[in-house]
Amino acid sequence: MKFPIQQIAGLLQGEVVGDDTIVIDNLSTLENAKKGCISFLSNPKYENFIYQTKASAVIVKSDFMPAREIKPTLIRVKDPYLAFSILLEEYDKMMSYLKVGIEEPSFIGKGSVTGEEVYRGAFSYIGENVKIGKNVKIYPHVYVGDGVKIGDNTILNPGVKIYSNVQIGNNCHIHAGAIIGSDGFGFAPQKDGTYKKIPQLGNVILEDNVDIGANTVLDCATLESTIIKAGAKLDNLIQIAHNVVIGENTVIAGQAGISGSTKIGKNCVLAGQVGIAGHVDIADKVTIGAQAGITKSIPTEGQIVLGSPAIPVGDFRRVFIVFKKLPELQEKILKLEESVRNFQEG
Amino acid sequence: MKFPIQQIAGLLQGEVVGDDTIVIDNLSTLENAKKGCISFLSNPKYENFIYQTKASAVIVKSDFMPAREIKPTLIRVKDPYLAFSILLEEYDKMMSYLKVGIEEPSFIGKGSVTGEEVYRGAFSYIGENVKIGKNVKIYPHVYVGDGVKIGDNTILNPGVKIYSNVQIGNNCHIHAGAIIGSDGFGFAPQKDGTYKKIPQLGNVILEDNVDIGANTVLDCATLESTIIKAGAKLDNLIQIAHNVVIGENTVIAGQAGISGSTKIGKNCVLAGQVGIAGHVDIADKVTIGAQAGITKSIPTEGQIVLGSPAIPVGDFRRVFIVFKKLPELQEKILKLEESVRNFQEG
Amino acid sequence: MKFPIQQIAGLLQGEVVGDDTIVIDNLSTLENAKKGCISFLSNPKYENFIYQTKASAVIVKSDFMPAREIKPTLIRVKDPYLAFSILLEEYDKMMSYLKVGIEEPSFIGKGSVTGEEVYRGAFSYIGENVKIGKNVKIYPHVYVGDGVKIGDNTILNPGVKIYSNVQIGNNCHIHAGAIIGSDGFGFAPQKDGTYKKIPQLGNVILEDNVDIGANTVLDCATLESTIIKAGAKLDNLIQIAHNVVIGENTVIAGQAGISGSTKIGKNCVLAGQVGIAGHVDIADKVTIGAQAGITKSIPTEGQIVLGSPAIPVGDFRRVFIVFKKLPELQEKILKLEESVRNFQEG
Repeated sequence: MKFPIQQIAGLLQGEVVGDDTIVIDNLSTLENAKKGCISFLSNPKYENFIYQTKASAVIVKSDFMPAREIKPTLIRVKDPYLAFSILLEEYDKMMSYLKVGIEEPSFIGKGSVTGEEVYRGAFSYIGENVKIGKNVKIYPHVYVGDGVKIGDNTILNPGVKIYSNVQIGNNCHIHAGAIIGSDGFGFAPQKDGTYKKIPQLGNVILEDNVDIGANTVLDCATLESTIIKAGAKLDNLIQIAHNVVIGENTVIAGQAGISGSTKIGKNCVLAGQVGIAGHVDIADKVTIGAQAGITKSIPTEGQIVLGSPAIPVGDFRRVFIVFKKLPELQEKILKLEESVRNFQEG
Repeated sequence: MKFPIQQIAGLLQGEVVGDDTIVIDNLSTLENAKKGCISFLSNPKYENFIYQTKASAVIVKSDFMPAREIKPTLIRVKDPYLAFSILLEEYDKMMSYLKVGIEEPSFIGKGSVTGEEVYRGAFSYIGENVKIGKNVKIYPHVYVGDGVKIGDNTILNPGVKIYSNVQIGNNCHIHAGAIIGSDGFGFAPQKDGTYKKIPQLGNVILEDNVDIGANTVLDCATLESTIIKAGAKLDNLIQIAHNVVIGENTVIAGQAGISGSTKIGKNCVLAGQVGIAGHVDIADKVTIGAQAGITKSIPTEGQIVLGSPAIPVGDFRRVFIVFKKLPELQEKILKLEESVRNFQEG
Repeated sequence: MKFPIQQIAGLLQGEVVGDDTIVIDNLSTLENAKKGCISFLSNPKYENFIYQTKASAVIVKSDFMPAREIKPTLIRVKDPYLAFSILLEEYDKMMSYLKVGIEEPSFIGKGSVTGEEVYRGAFSYIGENVKIGKNVKIYPHVYVGDGVKIGDNTILNPGVKIYSNVQIGNNCHIHAGAIIGSDGFGFAPQKDGTYKKIPQLGNVILEDNVDIGANTVLDCATLESTIIKAGAKLDNLIQIAHNVVIGENTVIAGQAGISGSTKIGKNCVLAGQVGIAGHVDIADKVTIGAQAGITKSIPTEGQIVLGSPAIPVGDFRRVFIVFKKLPELQEKILKLEESVRNFQEG
């Protein structure tokens, strides 16, 4: 994809200074730019980069005056950082929805329908009675099981696997290798020490605007639905067990794990490698620090916790200061005991 | 799949009350049921749900008398919960083994054989000299390397990757994205600071009735076999390093990690995010709490441990109570020191 | 693959004793060997195994004299362990690069080129404008996005997914299910509580001799590059966030997670399940113990740390000894308080 600099300047309502015939094919920082890139200079601290950059164009402030000769074409705007952000988003949106049409070989079962502007990559597999909305992008090696429903503008990156009867909303983005709807981990212990599988016949529901990271796994519910509510964002390698509910706009960082039937409120933040036990309720706007272990419900909205098992973050910090001095404390106790013995003896 | 209500009643040895011509195509709770679903009412506490449910049929106790008008067809049985469980299992078994035959394109190398009732999904890949038993279900995007052996009734969900020479028993279920037999992580440090790979030529053996969760990884042994013994159940995103042995009927929850050459006994329970160091032996029936870190062998059968590094669970709980009060304890020590100083000075 | 025993003896500069017409097709320990295997006896402690082994050939010391009748052919060498290691490496190299040619169906987009001796497995997908060096092995179900560059002798195991514009060096080995270049986890909070995605347009660079474990995920940088430097070795199920830099010859064990923009020095060792916060710098040759949590930079070369949050390992051990005795310490403090009260009261 190549964009004339004039078109970009038009979008940003900026003024072109220099060669206005160039074309742009990528975005970059000043430092890392190559020929064909557009970059930006916002903080005057980094001005010297503009004299060395290989960028073909740079977005600058309206009042920027180069101190010496400069190679890239300039686009003068009011707020270069904002302009660059707008450009980034436009470029990202364009690139994300670039692919259209059907690559062969691909597989689609009977009774399945797809909307307009769909991309079905080579080696993608769609089962029977699947309903897929418009502008959905299904990359190579994606598997979509029987009876799945997918809304509009949703992206399934390469290798995503969607089990039967999962429901996915609009504007979702599922990254490569994510698994949606695998069997919940439910086994009933038998008298002879073996385990008998408890059938897992429910499904997973992703509401609108949900992002799921690469190689993350969401298990289906036993009978009902594991639910990820609208706007929730999940990072990579996360484990979501059966019957979990994640609230609206809750953000979960990489490698966190949520055990079965736990419900998490809306607008919560879970840091990396957090673990949450089963059948626990977490209130709205709770923040859970990295590697924390949650063993019981957190009913207080806005609570911030840390540690394993987790305690309020202020408590954790106060405790940890003393924890590090434990040998010293022990020493003090021994001395105190000696002093007291001396008193008692004499 | 649609089942006449009379057929279901026959299976459950129950009596049909109401419209006995309906057909059932799914199972659900009373609350979440749609048309076509069968549900159950066991606990009288939930009786009001039966008057609102959209279920087409409900399994009830033999002596259940509706307090008011009721829409669904009833099946009267002795124990509704047990009857529903039987139905769940039958349905699950039927659905799990529904797929039969070969979808194209699929790939099978020379010298490979499969038994009766096998399913090979589109884009599945079977290498050379592979032996696959009867009623095995190989979903789309599954890779089976050269020389692999798979027993009867085993299910490989979409995207499972089996490296060469892995052996898998009967009635195993491997969930989507699981990797069986990747190279063990063995590197010999060289004088110049680089690492030289130690070849990993062993394999992985899964005995009968083993379940492996989605995106879980089992490395092959260096020369011999990494072994998962009969009846062991592994959840999602678990890491099993080279030369590990997991005992019969041991259950491991999500995101646990077992380092190289560690041996775990039978009927153990490892909770989520547990980490176990290499070359460690764990006795039978040991329980390891969530996020615990095991750095040395646990030779005592039935031991329960918690913490990182882990200690016996009772000890951990007693220690943790004091841990949370550490700032208070420090305060007490300071006061004691002051008192003692006062005594000494006067 | 079958190798005449004479050929093996030639490679090892050893002397054949016994049947010199046999052929070898695998390597094993004495204990696990089957017919066709070659094994070795180095430690005299294990001599009795040589009389029971099913191996067809055994590498022994030049001066080894069997105490009783022996079935396998012997190869006498100076150092049996070294000889066996050489054999292992040769065998491993041969097996790793065995596959050559194109299996169908496979997909390659326009403008893409591959070097000599390339293997492209069935159902592998290569996008547009991809450059692949010689002797590269692309297994089934691998996805290589548009604009990717891959050096010589690199192996991509089944199901690996490489996003657009990723660069991979020579002699890299990426294990099954690994994801390279998925979007970094960047979202800007909006006033209404929702999150807006920050476009992730950078890439990932793997330098030469990098190993990436199964189902490990490496996110692309926001604008620049996430970089794994030459010789770094990453185990399975690791999370590498956007803009991370991993130094030369650094080794990271399974399930570790590195947050965004963190830089790790060279020749570091990170044990399993380690978590590192974002925007942190780790010096060269630092060792981080299993399950440790790193919340701030470690500027001291060669530092060894443990715990969450991590402290120097010696401190951690001293602290942990006292930690386990906390209830006892509390008891002592209560007694001291009583004694002091007694003094004060008279």
